[in-house]
Amino acid sequence: MSRIRDHVSVPIGDRSYEILIGNGLLGDAETYSTLPTGSSAVIVSNDTVGPLYAARLKHALQGRFGSVQLIELPDGEAHKNWQTLNRIFDAMLSAACDRKTVVFALGGGVVGDMAGFAAACYMRGVPYVQVPTTLLAQVDSSVGGKTAINHPLGKNMIGVFNQPLLVVADLDVLKTLPEREFIAGLAEVIKYGPIADAAFLDWIEANLEALKAREPKAVAHAVKRSCEIKAWVVAQDERETGLRAILNFGHTFGHAIEAGLGYGEWLHGEAVGCGMVMAADLSACMGLIEHAHAARLVRLVERAGLPVRAPKLGVPRYLQLMRVDKKADDGEIRFVLLEGAGRAGVHRAPADRLAEVIGRHSD
Amino acid sequence: MSRIRDHVSVPIGDRSYEILIGNGLLGDAETYSTLPTGSSAVIVSNDTVGPLYAARLKHALQGRFGSVQLIELPDGEAHKNWQTLNRIFDAMLSAACDRKTVVFALGGGVVGDMAGFAAACYMRGVPYVQVPTTLLAQVDSSVGGKTAINHPLGKNMIGVFNQPLLVVADLDVLKTLPEREFIAGLAEVIKYGPIADAAFLDWIEANLEALKAREPKAVAHAVKRSCEIKAWVVAQDERETGLRAILNFGHTFGHAIEAGLGYGEWLHGEAVGCGMVMAADLSACMGLIEHAHAARLVRLVERAGLPVRAPKLGVPRYLQLMRVDKKADDGEIRFVLLEGAGRAGVHRAPADRLAEVIGRHSD
Repeated sequence: MSRIRDHVSVPIGDRSYEILIGNGLLGDAETYSTLPTGSSAVIVSNDTVGPLYAARLKHALQGRFGSVQLIELPDGEAHKNWQTLNRIFDAMLSAACDRKTVVFALGGGVVGDMAGFAAACYMRGVPYVQVPTTLLAQVDSSVGGKTAINHPLGKNMIGVFNQPLLVVADLDVLKTLPEREFIAGLAEVIKYGPIADAAFLDWIEANLEALKAREPKAVAHAVKRSCEIKAWVVAQDERETGLRAILNFGHTFGHAIEAGLGYGEWLHGEAVGCGMVMAADLSACMGLIEHAHAARLVRLVERAGLPVRAPKLGVPRYLQLMRVDKKADDGEIRFVLLEGAGRAGVHRAPADRLAEVIGRHSD
Repeated sequence: MSRIRDHVSVPIGDRSYEILIGNGLLGDAETYSTLPTGSSAVIVSNDTVGPLYAARLKHALQGRFGSVQLIELPDGEAHKNWQTLNRIFDAMLSAACDRKTVVFALGGGVVGDMAGFAAACYMRGVPYVQVPTTLLAQVDSSVGGKTAINHPLGKNMIGVFNQPLLVVADLDVLKTLPEREFIAGLAEVIKYGPIADAAFLDWIEANLEALKAREPKAVAHAVKRSCEIKAWVVAQDERETGLRAILNFGHTFGHAIEAGLGYGEWLHGEAVGCGMVMAADLSACMGLIEHAHAARLVRLVERAGLPVRAPKLGVPRYLQLMRVDKKADDGEIRFVLLEGAGRAGVHRAPADRLAEVIGRHSD
C-alpha cells in the first residue's frame, strides 16, 4: 500500500505552522525535526489513547528531549474542566518543567483543548504540538488554536487562542477509532461543504460509503480538504471577529444539546450533526436557502449515521442554553445560517421561527 | 492645590495603550472616553477596596455601558487562586456577559492579576482596564500585561500575557492606602533605580522622606518615572525572552519568602524589598558590583521601612522553592543581579555562594 505524506500550511504571521498528514507520522522521529529541542517534553493524553500510542510517541521524542513525561487524564468531555486542567499543572510543576518544556497533546478534541489551554497558561505560555488521534480532532479541533474548558453554564466558555507549533495528523491512528467516534468526526467533515465549498459537498455525497469504510485515500482527502478550508478561514480571521464564525455552523444548537443533556451524553460531533440539520431548517424557514437544499443536508447527515432528531429539552430550556453562547451579542442569539451552496453567514433569528424549528426537530 | 494630569505610553504595536496618571481620574467619566462602548461592564474588586471606590467608578461608567456589575473578591494574596478566579467566571456567565463586555480591575496587584487573567480566558478573551489602587499596582503590576494566579507549588505559575486597554492611576486613592501597603509599594519604586536608572536611584534617596509622607508631587514623579521605565522595558521585550527579566530583581528570593511562609504572610513588596537586599549581596559576592553599592541599597530599603532580614526557612528549603521559579532554565536557578549603577542582568549563581548569602540574611 502506498504511503501518504502530505501537508497543509496555516499562514498566520509569526504564528504560522504546518499540518502534517500521512501514515506512520506519530512514531517517526523525523516528524518532529523542526521542533525546538529542550530538556523536557510532556505528553498529555487520556486513559484510552495513552495506552495505545503514548509509548510510540515517547520513543520518537526521546532523541530531542532529556525527559519525556506522560500525563494521563480521564477520558471524555465530562472531564474537560478546572479539576482536570489542574492535574496537568500539578504534574508539570511537580516535575519542575520550565518555560522551554514542549507539551504534546495526544488524543481527541478534549485532550487537545485542555493541553493547549494548559500550555498557554503554564508559566504564561510554553509551546505545544497537536497530535490528534480522532477524525474530529484531525479535521477540526487541532487546527486554529482554539483552546478551552467547559463551565457548568456553557461549553468552551473558559479558554484562550493559542496556536500550536505543529499539527501531526497520523492517518494510521484512525484505524483504532471506535465506530461511533469516527462517525461523529464525519459531522465536522460534512460541515465544510455547505459553509465553504459546494464541490467538496458533492465529493462527500459521492464518497460517503468509502469514508465510512475508512478507505485510506478517501479519508486522506477528507482530512486534507477539511484542513485546507479551516486553514483558509483561520488565516483570514484568527480570533473570530467575523468570517471564522461560519465554522460554528450547527454548533449553537449543538452546544445547547450537549449542555442540556450533560457533557459526554452525546458526542460533540453527534450534537453538531443534529445542530446542522436544525440550522439548515432555520436557514430555509428564513428564506435564505431552498427547502430542497436543507433536505439534501439532512439526508447526508442521516446517511452518515448521525442523529437528526434532537433531545426533548423544551423550547424555553433550549433558548436559555443558547443565550450564553459565545456568539451571543448584547444578549441576542446569533446563528450561522446557510446562504446558498457553499456559503454561510451569521444571522439573528426571530424568536417565533426559532421556537418553531426547535419544536419540529426535538422529541 | 494644583491638579496633576499626566500620561505614559506603552508602545507595543496593536497592543499599545496609555497609562493615565493624576488626581480624581477614577470617578471622572472623561477618563474612559477612549474605551469602546458595550452593553455591559464588570468591575472586579475586593471587599476592602470595593466599598471605598466601586460606587464612584460605577457612576463614571454608567454613561458608556448598559449595565455595570460589581464582583467583590476576598482581599489578599492568599485568595489569588483557582477558586477565586472561578467566582469571576461564575458571576460573568450568570449575568450573560458577552464577548464585548469590558472588565475593570479595581484594586491592587492581586485584583489586577486575577481580573486580567479572567478577561484573557472569558470566552477566549474580553478587553480589560486596570484601575490600580495601591502604589505597588500603579508603579508595577498594572503595567505590562502579566496576569496570573498562584499554585501551591509556586507564585504566579498559572497565567498569560494580556495587555489592558488602558491603565488609570488615580493618585488620590493612595491617600487611603494603609501605611504597610504604601511602604511595600516603595519596594517596587526603589527597584527601578538600581536596575535601570542611576539618576532615579539618587532621586529616591533624596526624596524618600517626601515619598513616605505621600507628598503629592513626589508621589506623582515616582509613579510616572516608574511607569516610564517599565513601559520602556516592556516595549522592548513584551514576553520576557530577555531584557524584561531585569524587572524581577529581588523577586526570586522574594517569591521563595512568600511561598515559604505561605502567601499573604509578608506583602509582596516586603518580600521584594528583602529579596533585593539578598540579590545585591549576591551580586557583590560574585564580584559584579562593589560591596559599597550593595550596602547603599540595603540602607535605602531599610530607611523605607522594608524588612532586610529574611525568615529562617533553612537553606535547602530556599533552594527547593527557587528551583520552580519561572526564570529557572533546564532546572538551573537564575538570578537578576546588579552589574553596576542602573544596570542589571540574568546570571547563574554557584551553589556555595547562594547558600552563603541565604544563610547570612535569614534568621
